[in-house]
Amino acid sequence: MTEDCDWLQVPPAPLNDTARQAAVARQGELTKPPGSLGRLEGVAERLAAMQGRERPTLERIHVAVFAGDHGVVEEGVSPFPQAVTAQMVVNFAMGGAAIAVLARSLGASMEVMSLGTVAEVPSHPAIQQIGLGPGTANLAREPAMTAGQLERAMNVGRQCAERARRAGAELFIGGDMGIGNTTSAAAVACSILKRPGAELAGPGTGLDANGVRHKADVIEWGLERHSGVRGEALGSLRDLGGFEIAALAGSYIAAAQIGLPVLVDGFISTTAALVATRLCPGAEAWFFYGHASAEPGHAVLLRELNAEPLLQLEMRLGEGSGAATAVPLLRMACELHAGMATFAEAGVAGSSQ
Amino acid sequence: MTEDCDWLQVPPAPLNDTARQAAVARQGELTKPPGSLGRLEGVAERLAAMQGRERPTLERIHVAVFAGDHGVVEEGVSPFPQAVTAQMVVNFAMGGAAIAVLARSLGASMEVMSLGTVAEVPSHPAIQQIGLGPGTANLAREPAMTAGQLERAMNVGRQCAERARRAGAELFIGGDMGIGNTTSAAAVACSILKRPGAELAGPGTGLDANGVRHKADVIEWGLERHSGVRGEALGSLRDLGGFEIAALAGSYIAAAQIGLPVLVDGFISTTAALVATRLCPGAEAWFFYGHASAEPGHAVLLRELNAEPLLQLEMRLGEGSGAATAVPLLRMACELHAGMATFAEAGVAGSSQ
Repeated sequence: MTEDCDWLQVPPAPLNDTARQAAVARQGELTKPPGSLGRLEGVAERLAAMQGRERPTLERIHVAVFAGDHGVVEEGVSPFPQAVTAQMVVNFAMGGAAIAVLARSLGASMEVMSLGTVAEVPSHPAIQQIGLGPGTANLAREPAMTAGQLERAMNVGRQCAERARRAGAELFIGGDMGIGNTTSAAAVACSILKRPGAELAGPGTGLDANGVRHKADVIEWGLERHSGVRGEALGSLRDLGGFEIAALAGSYIAAAQIGLPVLVDGFISTTAALVATRLCPGAEAWFFYGHASAEPGHAVLLRELNAEPLLQLEMRLGEGSGAATAVPLLRMACELHAGMATFAEAGVAGSSQ
Repeated sequence: MTEDCDWLQVPPAPLNDTARQAAVARQGELTKPPGSLGRLEGVAERLAAMQGRERPTLERIHVAVFAGDHGVVEEGVSPFPQAVTAQMVVNFAMGGAAIAVLARSLGASMEVMSLGTVAEVPSHPAIQQIGLGPGTANLAREPAMTAGQLERAMNVGRQCAERARRAGAELFIGGDMGIGNTTSAAAVACSILKRPGAELAGPGTGLDANGVRHKADVIEWGLERHSGVRGEALGSLRDLGGFEIAALAGSYIAAAQIGLPVLVDGFISTTAALVATRLCPGAEAWFFYGHASAEPGHAVLLRELNAEPLLQLEMRLGEGSGAATAVPLLRMACELHAGMATFAEAGVAGSSQ
């Protein structure tokens, strides 16, 4: 890697423990039995530490969707044709995709980063075309990316997080699109965690049992081909990853560095979060996890990261959709924290215990 | 029971299967892998059947909070003083309680029904005072309610649901407040389900292990005292229940009868839902369950009702707060269902499988 990756060495921003303690104290004074708002209490306390104020808010949300194609699709790992990646990029821009509907519902800003697809993406004001190439190479047979592609993809993510912060975003959501990307994400995670392909291979967009077995084999071929990077985050990302996974990882690292809270989505995003925490230890302090995906490998990654997602709705769409679905929970946690009366304010008696 | 309870015999409103099938077909055409929105798909399909249209909406939500005191508190089953019930009624009306914050956040209408408290509730335009008496009698020693109190409480709930429907509500949430009401709810459910008190006794607002054991004993005393109503929903509700539990049950039954979807909250509300499904078989077709409470007995009731809550956030506050927290999920399910593009509209290729 060249000096363009020096930014990866920057540590994550510190949390504000004074604000966290003030938030914890306030939670104890609100008119409810202690702890009775469950995980919403911890969300408010963590956001207080991130935002450096006793009463955090979450008005401005930014969603960045990263799209890229995967050479490994030629091994037959997806029931969808590769053209769908570029078609969905247009669907994001036109507002018809799930994440676009959710972003509108949340009043969130959204940008679509087309990193490199097999089919041409038509010019559209809402699509940023990055042009890293017509998808990655086939990870089962050669390195998925060059070092230069990896650097550029991670920098695209970094710039997204920095733009979001400059525009006043209080929460960053990264989404993914890429036919074949559960294969690539599983391969990256297996390589980093030194697990067999069968442990993280799942149905993705809809493989049957035979398809999942074949996918596990393809991942194994990739792991053998790139055994030299086993256990190493950046090398695994380059040799087995995808443009959108690299961009996600870059965005998460940069967000942690500049102190922008992240709401991680599902299997692909959590793979990027795994990379981010390996490259930038402590970055995890800035991450919330939106949902537990139905993709079986997600549970393995969540355990590895000691992460507890907010939602368990059997979603498995990607795009950032599971994270977006969890945003109202974070907002309500803030609203309850700021808006509830204290026992003293309301003249309500406390517990005798 | 007198003729005032004849309305309980009315069957639940039928669902519209044509609308449901149209919604299922639409889900299959939206630009996503089939099933990838997980439980949000089923929510949209069920709401379509309830509202009788392919694309349901959930704009107008009505929250009714029912409050009442419990004579069983004299057995020492709660760490909070009984005066808190009346104090919290005022806190609901003044907007400082959790459910009030959440209702504002949702743009929901909210009414506060004070059914009968030990401490006097001051006059306030946002509080409807029903005056069933200074709380129920001590269920461990005598019937909690008279037949007349039970009828009136259930009718209060019924009228709330009917008012909500007339005002255009598309979803009904019932909330509860009553120091001691986890004891009462557990006793009602144990009596109906023929379970021992220890199976449903939990910490409630914050009992320690000794407190929970004592609470289980108190429930057992009640079950022995009222063994004649074992297995019987209405008798168990009268002898072991509370004003707010009876009002909730009445509201749920009436909502099902008039075809108003219900979002059930936690342990107290689910006990009322159990009563409702026993008294009005088929009412469950109109119920969603908002969250799994941290109160351990809730899991038992949910299994009994074959109910799958949307959220698992370790909340245990009551007031309807867990249900309110789940409302954005229902709304997003509707928005995705109505707002996403189909494969044909977006020019996106489908799966080959």
